[in-house]
Amino acid sequence: MGQEQQPGRRAVLGAAAALSAAGAVTLGAGPAAQAAQRRPADSGGRGHRGELPTPCVIAHRGTSGYRPEHTMGSYQLALDMGADIIEQDLVPTKDGHLVCRHENDITATTDVADHPEFASRKTTKTVDGVKLTGWFTEDFTLKELKTLRAKERIPKQRQHNTLYDGRWDVPTFEEVLRWAEQEGRRRGRRVWLHIETKHPTYFRKLGLGLEKPLARLLRRYGRHKAHSPNFVQSFEPSSIRRLSGLVDCPGVVLLSGPTSRPWDFVEAGDPRTVADLVEPEGLKWIAGFAQGIGPTLDLVIPRTSSGTLGEPTTLVRDAHARRLVVHPYTMRNENTFLPADFRRGQDPNAYGDAFGAFKRYFETGIDGLFSDNCDTALLAAADFRGDG
Amino acid sequence: MGQEQQPGRRAVLGAAAALSAAGAVTLGAGPAAQAAQRRPADSGGRGHRGELPTPCVIAHRGTSGYRPEHTMGSYQLALDMGADIIEQDLVPTKDGHLVCRHENDITATTDVADHPEFASRKTTKTVDGVKLTGWFTEDFTLKELKTLRAKERIPKQRQHNTLYDGRWDVPTFEEVLRWAEQEGRRRGRRVWLHIETKHPTYFRKLGLGLEKPLARLLRRYGRHKAHSPNFVQSFEPSSIRRLSGLVDCPGVVLLSGPTSRPWDFVEAGDPRTVADLVEPEGLKWIAGFAQGIGPTLDLVIPRTSSGTLGEPTTLVRDAHARRLVVHPYTMRNENTFLPADFRRGQDPNAYGDAFGAFKRYFETGIDGLFSDNCDTALLAAADFRGDG
Repeated sequence: MGQEQQPGRRAVLGAAAALSAAGAVTLGAGPAAQAAQRRPADSGGRGHRGELPTPCVIAHRGTSGYRPEHTMGSYQLALDMGADIIEQDLVPTKDGHLVCRHENDITATTDVADHPEFASRKTTKTVDGVKLTGWFTEDFTLKELKTLRAKERIPKQRQHNTLYDGRWDVPTFEEVLRWAEQEGRRRGRRVWLHIETKHPTYFRKLGLGLEKPLARLLRRYGRHKAHSPNFVQSFEPSSIRRLSGLVDCPGVVLLSGPTSRPWDFVEAGDPRTVADLVEPEGLKWIAGFAQGIGPTLDLVIPRTSSGTLGEPTTLVRDAHARRLVVHPYTMRNENTFLPADFRRGQDPNAYGDAFGAFKRYFETGIDGLFSDNCDTALLAAADFRGDG
Repeated sequence: MGQEQQPGRRAVLGAAAALSAAGAVTLGAGPAAQAAQRRPADSGGRGHRGELPTPCVIAHRGTSGYRPEHTMGSYQLALDMGADIIEQDLVPTKDGHLVCRHENDITATTDVADHPEFASRKTTKTVDGVKLTGWFTEDFTLKELKTLRAKERIPKQRQHNTLYDGRWDVPTFEEVLRWAEQEGRRRGRRVWLHIETKHPTYFRKLGLGLEKPLARLLRRYGRHKAHSPNFVQSFEPSSIRRLSGLVDCPGVVLLSGPTSRPWDFVEAGDPRTVADLVEPEGLKWIAGFAQGIGPTLDLVIPRTSSGTLGEPTTLVRDAHARRLVVHPYTMRNENTFLPADFRRGQDPNAYGDAFGAFKRYFETGIDGLFSDNCDTALLAAADFRGDG
């Protein structure tokens, strides 16, 4: 994984920024919206090309605050609630089908442990340097995987979601594409997806590279173009670079904690960490093959030693200077996930002042936000734009 | 309040039943749907005239499981989630406007107690025989009431909903009618409402009769016809009878516990209780001026002494024999509200086996169901019809 540049698609994003600035006029007349309008078209990258509002709301794993994540029920509710974009995480099956799971380890999100016929598939693996014991998608054919039922990943925190345990199976990405097509027709609007390749280097070494099958599916459903309603995203920059050679969809490089290293960097001996990538030089490098970044919220506003929100970094400004959209992750309404100054009461699973936190994050100028609670996020975004 | 008969609109409902039986063919091919199709058109009354599925889901006070009840946010989410019908409860302001609240006592559902300018309005009243201390809509002009903000009624049970406290005001019924019109246009389908007159005799004695202003509004929005997308409902049969002289919308008589007496009966010296009204003779009387009943779920399936579901009564069959639709209330997902045999774990606010309970109730042949959790109810209804 070298650092050589390849041509980005800045021309497209330039047009996008202009469209965006024009489009903003119709979004509302509140102070925030006016500030957004004042920002010159060339001061920040935009990936939404006038169709998505700013900030846009990305339904994280669907409506994972209310449904077992990455199920058709989770995606459907997100769309019904009006989410601007719906996220899928992709992992492969043994026979190379792409399915929607946050991890290839499906121990926590399916009923696989209750299937005696799969007991012998339980195993210990090292995935991206982490030792895991459980069941893994790459050890199941699609037909086998389809006999499992999805369940809530964090039942203690989100007991209400367990009501839907066993209701839906593990969707293939192609099922999602078909559903998006149908729903788009039915609603007279395009259904936007934010599609992540998970552990791409790990799977490549198993002969299960994700990018080609993903590109093939996007092409089959006419979603491979620069103006198609999707983003592709990955924690491994090389996966985004690879995809940029296969499809024209805007790519988003995900960025974890500052000391972390993308796993493809580890494998390739690239010494850079996320702390390097968020520097202007790192962003310039990313802009050579990607159109956005997806940093943790803490990279946008670090938390203080007491867990409260500190002062915003220059990341949003620096990324916009490179015409990169900024889609941070993840806002969740529960106290346990909120910055300390937005918690309310003692119950970790109670909701804190999520609206206050959304506002602080939106004020940094981010282009969109991943949230487990897209309904709350949509209300907060409408407030921020002044059209709430 | 006498027992004399007046002409009902059975011809309309006869046509409705035929439409319904034909419509059912398209609803799915599961065993339940097939059973529904086998039921002859004249064996049960139907009020949905082919447009509503059977069973239909009535969003109780909007999405009161997820939002402060009777707010535009609560109604909007219900519609977004796909509720078949959305409920409004109506009480009057001092100046005769109809607003949406479950009670005229707004102490628990608004921030009125935080308004020093209204401190002197706090008072004690007897409403339908019950002594209440608090603030009451009939003591506020609409302009005054519009300075209040709605909040969650049961914050200890539904802490998550408190996130939205203060976000919405108390909607007028006319605002709801305008919203339904707009949303209907936008979605290309009619938005159904289930509209309740609250304490109609009490308000009539205050010179704030509900039926005429309600009829006037329904007329203004073209919703006064037999085929308009609304039901009107009341615990006081005389209110439904009165409405039947003003508009052609199907009326639903609500029925509380067996020993209770409608308040208009109490005032008029009519000795009958709900236990009398659910007898064939009582249903025959209701069918003289109404097109449906809205019994408590316990009148459909009584609970045993240990709180579990017992055997269904003959109420659904008897009501259908009188061509009355049956819309019982209220299904809620939380353990504390479920029959004992559908509770799971010890936490009263955790969700129990709501799907199991929905199924038991749907199996009685009811035409619709009020639920605080319309999303769960819709999934359960689709399961029951075999199109889940």
